[in-house]
Amino acid sequence: MPTLLLDKNTVNGLLDMKTVIGAVEQAFRDWTEGAGTMPAKSYLLLGRGDFRAMPAALPGGAGVKWVNVHPQNRDRGLPTVMAVIVYSDPETGYPLAVMDATGITAFRTGATAAIAAKHLARPDSHTMGIIGAGRQSYTQIAAHSEVFRIDLIKVYDVVPEAVERLINAFPQFKVTACPLAEVAACDIVCTLTPARTPVFKTEWLRPGTHINAIGADAEGKEELEPGVLKRAIVVVDDLRQATTSGEINVPISLGLYSSKEVQATLGEIVTHRKPGRTDPQAITIFDSTGVAIEDIAIAKLVYDQAKNGDHPAMELV
Amino acid sequence: MPTLLLDKNTVNGLLDMKTVIGAVEQAFRDWTEGAGTMPAKSYLLLGRGDFRAMPAALPGGAGVKWVNVHPQNRDRGLPTVMAVIVYSDPETGYPLAVMDATGITAFRTGATAAIAAKHLARPDSHTMGIIGAGRQSYTQIAAHSEVFRIDLIKVYDVVPEAVERLINAFPQFKVTACPLAEVAACDIVCTLTPARTPVFKTEWLRPGTHINAIGADAEGKEELEPGVLKRAIVVVDDLRQATTSGEINVPISLGLYSSKEVQATLGEIVTHRKPGRTDPQAITIFDSTGVAIEDIAIAKLVYDQAKNGDHPAMELV
Repeated sequence: MPTLLLDKNTVNGLLDMKTVIGAVEQAFRDWTEGAGTMPAKSYLLLGRGDFRAMPAALPGGAGVKWVNVHPQNRDRGLPTVMAVIVYSDPETGYPLAVMDATGITAFRTGATAAIAAKHLARPDSHTMGIIGAGRQSYTQIAAHSEVFRIDLIKVYDVVPEAVERLINAFPQFKVTACPLAEVAACDIVCTLTPARTPVFKTEWLRPGTHINAIGADAEGKEELEPGVLKRAIVVVDDLRQATTSGEINVPISLGLYSSKEVQATLGEIVTHRKPGRTDPQAITIFDSTGVAIEDIAIAKLVYDQAKNGDHPAMELV
Repeated sequence: MPTLLLDKNTVNGLLDMKTVIGAVEQAFRDWTEGAGTMPAKSYLLLGRGDFRAMPAALPGGAGVKWVNVHPQNRDRGLPTVMAVIVYSDPETGYPLAVMDATGITAFRTGATAAIAAKHLARPDSHTMGIIGAGRQSYTQIAAHSEVFRIDLIKVYDVVPEAVERLINAFPQFKVTACPLAEVAACDIVCTLTPARTPVFKTEWLRPGTHINAIGADAEGKEELEPGVLKRAIVVVDDLRQATTSGEINVPISLGLYSSKEVQATLGEIVTHRKPGRTDPQAITIFDSTGVAIEDIAIAKLVYDQAKNGDHPAMELV
């Protein structure tokens, strides 16, 4: 039995945001109901960057994502983040496919935020704020527009060219450059920066807002002033990871916030084990750190579509 | 830049035991001296088997091994253990190669035991005992015969055909089937069973013996009676792993042994930070659980040889 070899173009060609959102939501459901297995991700911190090994198993599929973050790669003309998934049959352990997971990583982050917003934001949300117009912003827009009728997207970035590129990439939407305070006033706000000093001020907070806090994924990173958290219903993807490396990590380490104040995990929300938004005036926040079940759920989607196609393969093991 | 794709035959064709021993010993040295990075391996325990994600970085190379153990695979005509390594450039994170690591896994276990024996066994050791004549026994013989002048190998297995196969595989050595007590009386004894009840009795122990305890790699597994451990100088590959899943795990959980009784790690022995054997009459034990630096050191060897050759490759990421 050969192992499928699925390169970036092949994988990206098989990714459909609507289907991805369904698969990732099902993965959170399965995991919460005990049908998934996921140990903590492992970090290798090296001189010029880091690697993360992210294994998980879901019904029908298991695998590991191996992903790096090397900030200086831009100077070399290489992507900062590159990811590979080895995807295996949980029944036999056989490696069914090796696939690029760079696109999967971007898609799953957008999909998971949109799933959180679907359950936590006001259903009539129609304006979207983007703080940080980098790579992540594209899949955030793609994902949220599958779930909401977004008619206005307000964007802020310290680099005006990044905003310009985003505006040009979505001619089908009304996307406009705005000051931070205006972006923060949207129905759904996605923070997508590598900030270590909060970019979202408490004074900008409006009743009814939902915030996807995506940028903080390591100790010391923080995008929201702690006052924003204190006034919100906070949902995390994984409590342990959020506590050590998510949006809540800095306020917790400063004694300004406690992990006990977290309302629920996303899995508890999508399985209706715990309530999310209580009323239209509530502030809700999803603290996203990224978990391997998201990646493996999409790897399964990709493999299931690719296995009957005409793709390179080899007897690897 | 393409990613090399190295299948089982290619990898196995590039593995040379003498070189592997040198690379793995250097990896233990590097790791102990702070030039390597290795988080704990992650386990995924599923219904029909398990997976382990084993990431590590060494000078010049980083990667993750993704390996399964599915005992029922034999009935399906598939190997019980299959392993894949994604091998990356630590400077950029680029995935340089995806390679079969099933052979690497077998080679590194033999190589590491031989390195332990080189530092712990009597230098004039010339008889080798094999308890358990499965796949691992082949690389144990190959590795130890690179380091010692082995002139007699005594073998025991519950399956006589397994002993017969091993004898036939090494016509260049004198290999004979023996009762357990005789095998245990060799200069160097390798225990290679999945036992959960000790197979090596204290009464068989002879002064001067070195034992490589390889089989125990999960909670509840145990090959040596606790009395054997109590009389020995014990060296482990990784203290945390050995305590939870190595040969010492059951005696520790029963209160018969303490991790404080462990003399040293293999890295401390090979860098001469701690002494090993004290005199020719001492009993020494190496408790092997398997660590990712062994695999990544060999992956680097394989990649460095393969990169200038004519092998399949693709633009994966």
